[in-house]
Amino acid sequence: MAIPYARRINGVRPSAIRELLRLGDDPELISFGGGYPDPALFPMNELSEIFHELLTTATAGTLQYTESRGLPELRKLIAERLTRGGTVCGADDVLIVQGGQQGLDLTAKLLLDAGDVVITENPTFLGALIAFAPYEPRYAPVRIDDDGMDVDHLEEILARNPGAKLLYTVPDFQNPTGVTLSLQRRRRLIELANRHQLVILEDTPYRDLRYEGSHLPTLKSLDTEGRVVHVGSFSKILAPGVRLGWAVAAPEVLEKLGLLKLAADTQSSTLNMSAAAAYLGRYDIDRHIADGNVVYRHKRDLALATLDDVLPPSVRFTRPNGGLFTWLSFPEGFDAAKFMQETLLPAKIAYVPGATFFPVHQEPNHARLSYSGIPDDRLLHGLRQLGELVRRQLES
Amino acid sequence: MAIPYARRINGVRPSAIRELLRLGDDPELISFGGGYPDPALFPMNELSEIFHELLTTATAGTLQYTESRGLPELRKLIAERLTRGGTVCGADDVLIVQGGQQGLDLTAKLLLDAGDVVITENPTFLGALIAFAPYEPRYAPVRIDDDGMDVDHLEEILARNPGAKLLYTVPDFQNPTGVTLSLQRRRRLIELANRHQLVILEDTPYRDLRYEGSHLPTLKSLDTEGRVVHVGSFSKILAPGVRLGWAVAAPEVLEKLGLLKLAADTQSSTLNMSAAAAYLGRYDIDRHIADGNVVYRHKRDLALATLDDVLPPSVRFTRPNGGLFTWLSFPEGFDAAKFMQETLLPAKIAYVPGATFFPVHQEPNHARLSYSGIPDDRLLHGLRQLGELVRRQLES
Repeated sequence: MAIPYARRINGVRPSAIRELLRLGDDPELISFGGGYPDPALFPMNELSEIFHELLTTATAGTLQYTESRGLPELRKLIAERLTRGGTVCGADDVLIVQGGQQGLDLTAKLLLDAGDVVITENPTFLGALIAFAPYEPRYAPVRIDDDGMDVDHLEEILARNPGAKLLYTVPDFQNPTGVTLSLQRRRRLIELANRHQLVILEDTPYRDLRYEGSHLPTLKSLDTEGRVVHVGSFSKILAPGVRLGWAVAAPEVLEKLGLLKLAADTQSSTLNMSAAAAYLGRYDIDRHIADGNVVYRHKRDLALATLDDVLPPSVRFTRPNGGLFTWLSFPEGFDAAKFMQETLLPAKIAYVPGATFFPVHQEPNHARLSYSGIPDDRLLHGLRQLGELVRRQLES
Repeated sequence: MAIPYARRINGVRPSAIRELLRLGDDPELISFGGGYPDPALFPMNELSEIFHELLTTATAGTLQYTESRGLPELRKLIAERLTRGGTVCGADDVLIVQGGQQGLDLTAKLLLDAGDVVITENPTFLGALIAFAPYEPRYAPVRIDDDGMDVDHLEEILARNPGAKLLYTVPDFQNPTGVTLSLQRRRRLIELANRHQLVILEDTPYRDLRYEGSHLPTLKSLDTEGRVVHVGSFSKILAPGVRLGWAVAAPEVLEKLGLLKLAADTQSSTLNMSAAAAYLGRYDIDRHIADGNVVYRHKRDLALATLDDVLPPSVRFTRPNGGLFTWLSFPEGFDAAKFMQETLLPAKIAYVPGATFFPVHQEPNHARLSYSGIPDDRLLHGLRQLGELVRRQLES
């Protein structure tokens, strides 16, 4: 039987990340693959208490349908927190989504016709490429360095792609590289978006995981024409398993995103939204995040110091000020996917080979390495082994 | 600022249901609108106990990321239950989705190119039209009577639409009419689908809410060529607020639906999936459903008897054997939307005007009436008032 799939399915393929999520169940594997937060940081006691209250003393309404845009109380608390952080907005400017990923899916669904040009960092978040694929875009990737997207290169790219519609960026502690867009470049990015009629999709899952320095303004807070769709997530600051995030956009855009949310899955979980609202209302999430950042900073320091120690100088890696990732660049000619398949996996070690993060020209000599979700001893052991195996490979 | 929306957004518009969900917050309103289950039936104690255990004695894994296809244990338990009900399948034939609505969205995303023909009952579930709209289909609606979709009319429709790709049906206690597809017609539907290379999207949110008679086989269980995508939901048998449903399809189809699920929102809530699995593993959900059906049968009987009593004979309505809805048909020339706006809402009563349930020619003289989520006294009071107001309107 031949199923008559839609044309859009041609571009929809299994991803390396998905296979890794499956591998993740092997308890022996030391995986630097998934961008998992450290489960030891989940506020289990607080959430346990909140869920208990919601399901005993509260009304059955927490298990009923609710507003498609999301619980008003949760939207209000998110808006207040964003406003405190400089991104001024109100409850009605916020749409609750099913993790940041749904914010990417809905924004692409809103904007992209087949063949439309999407500008991304090069490399960019694999999950965004996965979200965008069904809408059949073409990509115009922009160089990235330690200060994030190279805006001079962006200007060239825009000149060559006058019809480009959407620019996707992870300005803070980018996935996969860990780098952060500088303030000067943020301002320039907004100017260029205004001049070229671009919509900016600002994806901020790691924004709060800053281990040093001060927060830079969000692109949304610098937005002068309502061109920025700002997407955030509770996955890294509360827990991924509740599947909650938010989108903030100009009223007309948010209204349409809300219609697409309704079409896609009616609403997010009333229970989980109620719990997140109770958590935000009752506890100081920024204190919770600060406590977690002490742990992550330590893990980052441990990871970078170990990599300094074990990797040969021909292997470079980024030194992020926050987030969950460092990006390894092996010498040209090194095939990071083949190396993982043939050498790392048999030794029960995994990272994400970097090729899939490139939208167009897939450079084979990189890997994304996450240090966030692994206990110290395994982190140390795994990286030492990794270093040893890389050295051997490069010397052979 | 002009945002360059995708073409698909032209067909995406606010719906009557959405406005009603907002109205639902007015405590004075007696709403026969939403297809809400009775919150008094939610197993609060059991879920409270389960969530408490998951967040205290269990590992933090219940708040972490998990497999995109859904928790293996939950998929297994759903497959076992479907198999007991005659729809034989295994855990790997099941994809967990974010409520049945996501099953509709992903199936449409998988199959529909702009302009493709979707066959539906006439009228059909508004949420399906909302899910399908962004994929820009054309509709070929098929007559429906007390035995469900009229398969003779379907045959005519297929002859006139040789390229039709997808047939969407709610075979059990259809939304909005409450009618059920007969066994003979189910067999004929499968034959016609085989002959005309149709994919059938079988949507079964009300299937278990049967108040009399025996269950009929699912279309999936009669499927001889892997043409049926079967979608089910916990919303009406456990609680809508957990946002969990399932899709069952042929392996190749399910694999692709899983890729689209990953693209759309990574996964459903690990916590909620864990809770649903614990509930299914520990309690007899079919006993729970049977208990609830006693309540719903009573509400249906009360609603139908009251309508018999208060409505003039020129207003007809369906007599469903299960589910949440009856479908009112007023005399020709009656405008059910105008009547609601001008007469019912000022009296604090709401239903869903029927026009929006018709994919093509919107008949104005119908309304969907849900009796499920309302306490008896308000049900009785509301229907009596409704009857009185309808009588006055028709006599004037």
